[in-house]
Order: sequence, then C-alpha cells, then structure tokens
Amino acid sequence: MKNLINIIQNSSKVAIVTHTSADGDALGSSFGIALALEGMGKKVSVFLEEPVPKMLNFLPGQHLVAEYKGEFHDLCICVDTSDMKRLGERAEIYSNAARKITIDHHTTNNMQADGLWIDESAAATGEMIYKLIKALNVDISRDIAINLYTAIVTDTGGFRYSNTTPESHLIAADLLSRNVPFTDIIKKVFDTVSYSKMVLMKKTLDNLTLHFDGKVAVSYLLYDDIKSVDAQTDDFEGLVNVGRNLEGVEVSLFLREEQPGVFKGSLRANEYVDVAQIASVFSGGGHKRAAGFSMAGGLEETMEKVLSEIGKVL
Amino acid sequence: MKNLINIIQNSSKVAIVTHTSADGDALGSSFGIALALEGMGKKVSVFLEEPVPKMLNFLPGQHLVAEYKGEFHDLCICVDTSDMKRLGERAEIYSNAARKITIDHHTTNNMQADGLWIDESAAATGEMIYKLIKALNVDISRDIAINLYTAIVTDTGGFRYSNTTPESHLIAADLLSRNVPFTDIIKKVFDTVSYSKMVLMKKTLDNLTLHFDGKVAVSYLLYDDIKSVDAQTDDFEGLVNVGRNLEGVEVSLFLREEQPGVFKGSLRANEYVDVAQIASVFSGGGHKRAAGFSMAGGLEETMEKVLSEIGKVL
Repeated sequence: MKNLINIIQNSSKVAIVTHTSADGDALGSSFGIALALEGMGKKVSVFLEEPVPKMLNFLPGQHLVAEYKGEFHDLCICVDTSDMKRLGERAEIYSNAARKITIDHHTTNNMQADGLWIDESAAATGEMIYKLIKALNVDISRDIAINLYTAIVTDTGGFRYSNTTPESHLIAADLLSRNVPFTDIIKKVFDTVSYSKMVLMKKTLDNLTLHFDGKVAVSYLLYDDIKSVDAQTDDFEGLVNVGRNLEGVEVSLFLREEQPGVFKGSLRANEYVDVAQIASVFSGGGHKRAAGFSMAGGLEETMEKVLSEIGKVL
Repeated sequence: MKNLINIIQNSSKVAIVTHTSADGDALGSSFGIALALEGMGKKVSVFLEEPVPKMLNFLPGQHLVAEYKGEFHDLCICVDTSDMKRLGERAEIYSNAARKITIDHHTTNNMQADGLWIDESAAATGEMIYKLIKALNVDISRDIAINLYTAIVTDTGGFRYSNTTPESHLIAADLLSRNVPFTDIIKKVFDTVSYSKMVLMKKTLDNLTLHFDGKVAVSYLLYDDIKSVDAQTDDFEGLVNVGRNLEGVEVSLFLREEQPGVFKGSLRANEYVDVAQIASVFSGGGHKRAAGFSMAGGLEETMEKVLSEIGKVL
C-alpha cells in the first residue's frame, strides 16, 4: 500500500473510475476515495457511464461527478473493476492518465497499473478504501463513512453473505460511530421494491407449486408477464428464494421465459442436494447449492424434465 | 458487574430462566451463559416454558434444558426479562433461589435481584452476556459464540434496526472470528417462511391497492383468510411492509380482521407523514412512522375512514 500512498501524494489532478452498471460498492468506493482526496486538497473528478441509480442517490460526493472532455489527469484511480472492458467508454481516461492505480477485491483482475492492490479476502472494495484512507491519514468524515458503509452493506447483503468477515464488522463499527444514518441507508438499499418487482413477486407466488412431499418448490414467469411490466434484471433478483425459503423445501426451481420458448432456469438447494449436478444435465452449471441453465421448450415440458432430474437425487 | 461476578463465583447450582415465548435473544443469552457456567464447573439447568422453536433448534447448549422438580438452586439468573409475570410458571424457580441475578436491556425492568444489571443501550441481552463471560474470564467457545451471535442478529434484525450500535458490530466481529457458521444462522433465522406466512403474503399482495397517486398503499386480510391457514402471530410480521417498501409509497395501511367485524390496523410511513396522529383519531397510538389501532366495522367502511384521514395530511 506504500506505493499507492506515494503515487497519490504526488498527484494533484485525479480521475476516479469504476465499472459500468455501478452498484453500491462501486459508487461508495468511488465517492469515498474522491471525498478523501478532495479533503487532501486535490482536484478530483468522478467519471460515471450512467447516472447514479435512484436507490443510491443519497451518496455524498456527487458534486465531484464530471463529464470527460479529454483533459489530462496525472492520476486515474480505478476501483472495484477487474477488466478494462468493464470501464466502457471511460477506459480511455484510465489509459491516458500519467499514472494508474487499481484497487479491487475480485478474484480475477487483469488490470494494468502503476499501483495495483487486489485483496480477494475483502468483502467489498469499500473495506480496502477504508484502509487506504486511514493509511493516508485523512479523517473519515460522516460523508465518507456513509459511502463506505453503503459499499460494505451492498456487497455483503447486510453482513449476511459468506464473504462477510470479522473485519467487515470491525470497519462497520468504526463507520457507525461516525453518525452514519444506517437505518435510512438500509431502507433505501434493501427495502425498496419497484412496482414491476412487486407484480413479478405476486405472479411468482401465484405460480408456485410444491412437489415431492413439499421438498421441491417450482415457480415461473412467462414471457408476456415479464414484458407487461417492463422488468429490469434487478427485478428478478431473489425470486428463486421465494420457493427456497419456504419451510420444508430442499430444492427451488425458478423458470423465467427470457425469449418466447426459451427458459432460463435457476436452481437453489438448502441443505444437501447438488443442484450444479442437475444443471449440468441441461448444459448449465454453478455451485452445489446455486446453479442455473437455459433450455428451449414449452413450460410444462421444461418443468417435467427438470423435476424428473431432481426426483432422482432427493 | 463486579457484584454479579462475585455472586456467580460463589454459586454452584445455577438455574437459568428467561421470558415465555422465548426468542433468539432470550434463548441465545440463556444457553450462552449456561455453557459458560458449565465450563466453570457449575451444575447448570436451563428451565423453559415451551420447547425451543424449530427456527432456533440449532442453538448449542440444549443438553442443559431441564424439567423443574422443586429442587433448590443457590443462584437463579434471569435474562432478557423485565417482569416476573413474563417468567410464567418459572417465577417460582427465581423466587425460591438463594440468590438472584437479572440481566436485561429492556427500558422498563421491575425485577428484584441481588445482582441487577440493566443496560438499555445494549441492542440485545446477548451483548451483555458477552461482556459478562469476558469478565468471568471464560473463553468464548464456538458454541457460546453461536448463541450470542444469534441473540444479537435476532434483536437487531441483522444489524438493521436502529438499536444497532458500534459495539454490536465489535462484538459480532469477535464472535465471527470464532468460526460461527453465520450464513446458516441467517438462513434459519431470517430466510425461513412458513407455508401459512407465504399464503398470507400472497393474499396481501393480491389485495394491495394504491391510492393518492401511488403515495398510499392499502392491503388487508379477512378473518376467513387468516382462519383458513391457522396463522400464528409471527406470520403477520412484516406484512405492512409489503406496501411500505413499494417505490413511491409514503404511507402503508394494513388491516387484519382479528375477529369478525373487528380490524387491527397497522400504519407505516416512510418519510414525513405522522401516522401516530392518524392512529390517534381511531383511539390508537404509536410512533411517528409506525402506529396502530383497532376498529369495529366493515372492510370498505374502515378503509375509507382511514384513507380519508391519511388524505388530509399527505
């Protein structure tokens, strides 16, 4: 990290970039480090490909968002991004900067940088930014803390995912002591449901059926259902868990008709079934308890095929 | 706390009791301190009014659960309980013990004890038990850590409720470092939905209507719907949030027909409406953003009355 600090201290005009479709960790890390550098007296710009999503519009530091007009930066810091392609059009800002720093927690990172810091054990890039700001001897203001707390809660699912570490909690403890309005953040990030998502959730519940003595839950969304609400990718998140979370269920299958006659299948298991094995029968893959596949065919036919495979291993 | 340590060190046969309808904090605190005292070589019994709920059946220390047969204890420790009445039939175990300790975080506690420790700033009694075990110089084993982590996550809603403090996270950091299978605990505690709850959720979604340009969401469950699934009190928890979490909604009203022709109303606001004020019109009460009331009448009539009051303050 000494190398990074050295580079930062010797830079004055800094660009911050992160991946496209920036999420809470990407934006929280970007604005967090940007505010810290601003506090150090540097000229800082954050370049984004898309507007900040509504769900994250409370993040402080957005006054630093700028439009790129080909100007020169003596440093570009890229956060939470494993590949140049994920920078979209802003790859050129990174390429053109005199010096480059990349800070990331993804397992596979192939970025080129003068200062490269990859820590796969970090639950969020925000945790690394926290350590960097500490090492830079900059005070963690409430505004910085809001960004870093948001980064950590989004990437750990609110300290629930397996990537959460004792350190995630230690950092959260310090951030909370800086008067972060964490209940408001939690509400914005986790408890806001779009109208489309609610409609899809309702249909998922309506279509849910139990099989094999309640050990298997199956639900689906048809192409027309999805089209009718102009659903975003986000809206499907977690729908497979409606079945998975049901008491007594071991395997949950969720089918979503992505194109007419083509189903994307998500499989989840709770305790013992290897769903990656089941997905592989249909040329899919994944982990033991979370896998997926894609299959052409009618709804009934698709359901029956997958149920028959599940039945073999229950 | 010195007084408590003194009493504990000078006791050999210890009874642990907690409130009826024991939840994660009550049971986690009970088994946590019980295992610590067992490790100190004491004879420990945990007395419960009801069986451990299925959701919490993973808690270690259940070998210490005993049936009371009138035997003498030189110490009874009561955790997470603010009133003798909440001990149910086990009040006599507490009364009959030679010495009594009460450890609790509730605001109003009227227990009599030789060692009384009330800390309203603790998010969970489990946090206090953690400190006590540390002060007793007993190692926090993985089994103890599982109990205390469960206590803290249940009472803080997984670090989401406003009672969560920096200290909650500091303690969680230490507990996680003891190899607690926290993702399994989270799944058991937060992600298991009973079949009745799923049916009620579905009906809540089916019955949901939006009013005042989407600023108000209303839903309801009728007496027959509730009866048909043999719903438990737990099953209603969070149903008012289905409307509250919907994008654009400021006020959510959820009506549940408790007895034929009698509705229990729950009101939630997101940002600015004072729902305690609205509830008070119907002789109810609560907080600014979470309130409730009870009203006799038909569904339509009840909805209209409340909507009319909401309309006045939107």
